[in-house]
Amino acid sequence: MSLPAEFALIARHFRPLAGEGALGLADDAAVLDIPAGRRLVVAADAMVEGVHYLPADPPETVGRKLLRVNLSDLAAMGAAPLGYLMTTSFARGTADAWIAAFARGLAEDQRAFGLAALGGDTTVTPGPACLSLTILGTVAPDAVLTRAGARAGDDVWVSGTIGDGALGLRVLRGELPGDAEGHLVRRYRLPEPRLALGGALAGLARAGLDVSDGLVQDLGHLCRAAGCGAVIEAAAVPFSAPARAALAADPALLPVLLTGGDDYELLFAAAPADRAGIEARAAAAGVAVTRIGGFVPGAAEVTVRGADGQRMSLASGGWSHF
Amino acid sequence: MSLPAEFALIARHFRPLAGEGALGLADDAAVLDIPAGRRLVVAADAMVEGVHYLPADPPETVGRKLLRVNLSDLAAMGAAPLGYLMTTSFARGTADAWIAAFARGLAEDQRAFGLAALGGDTTVTPGPACLSLTILGTVAPDAVLTRAGARAGDDVWVSGTIGDGALGLRVLRGELPGDAEGHLVRRYRLPEPRLALGGALAGLARAGLDVSDGLVQDLGHLCRAAGCGAVIEAAAVPFSAPARAALAADPALLPVLLTGGDDYELLFAAAPADRAGIEARAAAAGVAVTRIGGFVPGAAEVTVRGADGQRMSLASGGWSHF
Repeated sequence: MSLPAEFALIARHFRPLAGEGALGLADDAAVLDIPAGRRLVVAADAMVEGVHYLPADPPETVGRKLLRVNLSDLAAMGAAPLGYLMTTSFARGTADAWIAAFARGLAEDQRAFGLAALGGDTTVTPGPACLSLTILGTVAPDAVLTRAGARAGDDVWVSGTIGDGALGLRVLRGELPGDAEGHLVRRYRLPEPRLALGGALAGLARAGLDVSDGLVQDLGHLCRAAGCGAVIEAAAVPFSAPARAALAADPALLPVLLTGGDDYELLFAAAPADRAGIEARAAAAGVAVTRIGGFVPGAAEVTVRGADGQRMSLASGGWSHF
Repeated sequence: MSLPAEFALIARHFRPLAGEGALGLADDAAVLDIPAGRRLVVAADAMVEGVHYLPADPPETVGRKLLRVNLSDLAAMGAAPLGYLMTTSFARGTADAWIAAFARGLAEDQRAFGLAALGGDTTVTPGPACLSLTILGTVAPDAVLTRAGARAGDDVWVSGTIGDGALGLRVLRGELPGDAEGHLVRRYRLPEPRLALGGALAGLARAGLDVSDGLVQDLGHLCRAAGCGAVIEAAAVPFSAPARAALAADPALLPVLLTGGDDYELLFAAAPADRAGIEARAAAAGVAVTRIGGFVPGAAEVTVRGADGQRMSLASGGWSHF
């Protein structure tokens, strides 16, 4: 009996991604054991062609971004990766070479981040591609980092640099001069999940998340979960050299950097007494962290102060699909 | 700070579906514990509007079918449900009432099957809706049922009735006379995951799966995993009364019943010595089971014998997306 094209495609491109417990992606489900003394952490994020990535993006980076935005959710919980399930609805007529490159990107990042595929579903859609990934990880019970727990008086910290991804998208759309092979586009296409830092924050950070919808909007989530406000200084927010250059050329880009999203940096709260500890652990994890403000008593609002000390007015809190 | 429409939609429709460990669907991931002595079972299935369900299908049944086809994968492994993550890419402009009804259907079946939402992602697509669900379950280590393990000489068993869903789809497409509120359409829209039966087969069934792509094609999977063939008798395959009536009116429908898919019945192998045991456990689980043939030595091929004892020629082994 010959196998239909669907199974041949899975065997050719996706079976090599399968890990232990995946039963070769040939069964109805994967079966695995969670190590004793670890809690299971699960998250799911989807990417739609033309919405979360561009049709012209290299398929390798599409696969890698799909995995990385999910790994970033594990990082935000302080968890370590275990495996993933992926459901792909490819646009009808997608070239086999596109799918092969997409799978190659996944394979590369699986090796880099130490996880493997556990299962999924492969189908087609008459519309643009819909790619969905569910990630599984584990965490020690006392190391779970959640959005709730910041207190008025805590510092607001952020990892890496903010706004690169939002600017990279503008470069790709031709709205901003820049190089499609440059730093900003690379940051849009290949976010860096901060797994080492997320794991290192256990016991010091009081609350945290990864910045996906924009710094200001996501800080608002920490405020609402804590029942307090936050004030950040725009001048303290870390920007990359290419982002600083873009901002120098057009100061009106500042709100884009602060609210644009696609950062996948960790945003977290910690007590002022733990500043040295946070910096030591971040250094050990090989990631820069920056204090950009503090949590304050009062309503769950985020205030951004400009270089002039005045409250900035931001038209949009961040990215929304609706 | 006002919340964007996306968060309001999640809060309104999906947060009420959240279970323990889901952190109110407000965090980056869910955190949960797998009970000691149980293995984790995970599977993912996606449904695309116009491919896996019809745009005119009631949204309640779309949500319920999405959950049920995934529950069926747990049933096929002998596992019990724990929770699920769902990523939805709704078509742009989908009415709030549609999403509300979709969520109501999920809520109804969550209660019926004893599980809850653990997380997910809500987005939009300019194309038809893509709905993806990852299901988590648990199983006792010695009760895992996989596709591999049938032996030549084993019986081929199937639960319930075959072909109803494929005929129901034809009714909805106007290709077959019938009632849109009748049994066949109901079976297409609301498959019945055989969780009790799957759990009851532990230690007796040697291999099994759920029939989603068509009886003949899915039996081929058991043959390939076992390295042997199978022979089934078309006259022994269980059909519902409405399916028998359709077949009497048009005998050319027989291949549709045998290869059409959308059955979500359990197809499994067991030794002839265990016939009474299988029947007793199925009776206790409240599900009819039928012996439809046997596994035979030789190549991994499925032979269907017609009422005349001759080998039937089936144009297509089953459903494929590509």
